Amino acid sequence: MISYEDVKNAYERIKNIVNHTPILTSRTLNNKVKAHVVLKCENFQRVGAFKFRGAYNAISQLSEEKKEKGIITHSSGNHAQAVALAAKLLNIQATIVMPNTSPMCKVNATRITYGAEVVFCQNSLKSRHTTTEKLIQKNGFTLIHPYDNDVVIAGAGTAALELLDEEPDLDVIIAPVGGGGLLSGSSIAAKGFNPNIIVYGAEPMNADDAYRSFHSGQVEINEDPDTIADGLRTNLCEKTLQIIRKNVSEIFLVSEHDIIEAMEFVWTRMKIIIEPSSAVPIAAILSGKVPIENKKVGIIISGGNFNLSEFFDEFRKL
Amino acid sequence: MISYEDVKNAYERIKNIVNHTPILTSRTLNNKVKAHVVLKCENFQRVGAFKFRGAYNAISQLSEEKKEKGIITHSSGNHAQAVALAAKLLNIQATIVMPNTSPMCKVNATRITYGAEVVFCQNSLKSRHTTTEKLIQKNGFTLIHPYDNDVVIAGAGTAALELLDEEPDLDVIIAPVGGGGLLSGSSIAAKGFNPNIIVYGAEPMNADDAYRSFHSGQVEINEDPDTIADGLRTNLCEKTLQIIRKNVSEIFLVSEHDIIEAMEFVWTRMKIIIEPSSAVPIAAILSGKVPIENKKVGIIISGGNFNLSEFFDEFRKL
Repeated sequence: MISYEDVKNAYERIKNIVNHTPILTSRTLNNKVKAHVVLKCENFQRVGAFKFRGAYNAISQLSEEKKEKGIITHSSGNHAQAVALAAKLLNIQATIVMPNTSPMCKVNATRITYGAEVVFCQNSLKSRHTTTEKLIQKNGFTLIHPYDNDVVIAGAGTAALELLDEEPDLDVIIAPVGGGGLLSGSSIAAKGFNPNIIVYGAEPMNADDAYRSFHSGQVEINEDPDTIADGLRTNLCEKTLQIIRKNVSEIFLVSEHDIIEAMEFVWTRMKIIIEPSSAVPIAAILSGKVPIENKKVGIIISGGNFNLSEFFDEFRKL
Repeated sequence: MISYEDVKNAYERIKNIVNHTPILTSRTLNNKVKAHVVLKCENFQRVGAFKFRGAYNAISQLSEEKKEKGIITHSSGNHAQAVALAAKLLNIQATIVMPNTSPMCKVNATRITYGAEVVFCQNSLKSRHTTTEKLIQKNGFTLIHPYDNDVVIAGAGTAALELLDEEPDLDVIIAPVGGGGLLSGSSIAAKGFNPNIIVYGAEPMNADDAYRSFHSGQVEINEDPDTIADGLRTNLCEKTLQIIRKNVSEIFLVSEHDIIEAMEFVWTRMKIIIEPSSAVPIAAILSGKVPIENKKVGIIISGGNFNLSEFFDEFRKL
């Protein structure tokens, strides 16, 4: 299993490449939840999400032979851009398999800004996997899985490590959970730093596979979850489930309505753009269900990638 | 005339009350403008704008007799909320004269969140002034003018002071200009800190009174300027004109189109909410007209108050 040492080593490897992201607070939020809350703002990370940490940690450690052959991943989201940028910085060819329904802005960011090869597949998990598998067999690419990967998880944990370096007296850490990479990595960092820190996950009710898996002890699946928190539609894997079962005290579920309210609160009051997935832990604490009263609470804001072009198109018409 | 000492004294007075706001950077922005740009993020200031600095500095210095009688200002924007919050923190009764066309969210924030008395007037400068004047004569209120006021200007200058404390090697400082309080205060702080720092203003082309006044040497008026940068519709006064003529090297004009593009850039790439007025200096540097190549440039992001409720209402319908 991944150790605290692995997270610390990952941080040594990536610390000069990643953004040291700021920590923000809000008096209004503290008053609402009767706790001292600090947000670790990975929306300010490179590519706009914590994913860059894991991707860079993974890709930079590949053997020369693997680097030469190139890497591949399947994602329409932040992991795709993270892998593409990490590969670009390391001069490695990256191929990203994306559903043919992906927004053009994401395709273009991956292709043009970060210079990766984009291969389209059908919009299903099965098509993603088979398309990726074929390219691996044909070209000898190395798959950089978004979370079922020890070095990706260790990299993800470095956000919590940075947070604890600045805020060593946290009582609680909360992270959103999709595939479980961020929550796993954060929990390893937190428990390694101080075993008394309580770690919670937060998940959309409409994609409650991690909650169910956490309680049943086996990987439960949501086939096609319908949630606005697009980063959290994935299911846990055996690896992340085991880490989460060991380190995490509870996973809290939140409604779609509460996710949007929490997002509006953070945008409006804290003046930062967070994506819906990052609003999930905020929604959880605002719901009053998480026992944090009078505690010092760190929340990992996972990312800030939200398509604003329609909003600004409307705005330009005024 | 207001001195560097006044700004430093203002900072001593308010430093434990104001937020020490973060400084953010963007690789993409630096690459685009071929300079090293740091943003002093007063959108993270209390009430979401630098205005709190000047309001608190002014109100906290009133005599006990004036505090007893209460204060008044006319504003529908950030200054109203800044005065209301400063008064609340100092236990002083505040009256805010607002146009009867003000958005209810602003009226409610002033009234409910900050506990000020709101008095409505017609939506014209004349009505604002006569309504305010009548209330002053009747109640003996002290007017806290948003910029034609030495202590308000000194307070506004503390944002640049904080910026220079962290980034002492700036070559250039740029601030937006409406009534000129922020630009005046920033220029006094910058020139006092290091007379070699070049100070520029940035202004919407559609509200170019400061540009015209700067070049003609007298206060020029835009009667009813039509710009999205609602914080910059006001005109300079004699006081701010003199300071700006003394300290500022040029005022750059930007189009409405460029303001919106700059705002979209900052929201999308830097993940922070800035209001249109704050996008004006960003639009200026993105236009290529400001001579900053290879220089280190500080920009005062004046505020982040932008009504997002319609956007989220649409979002909730999806």
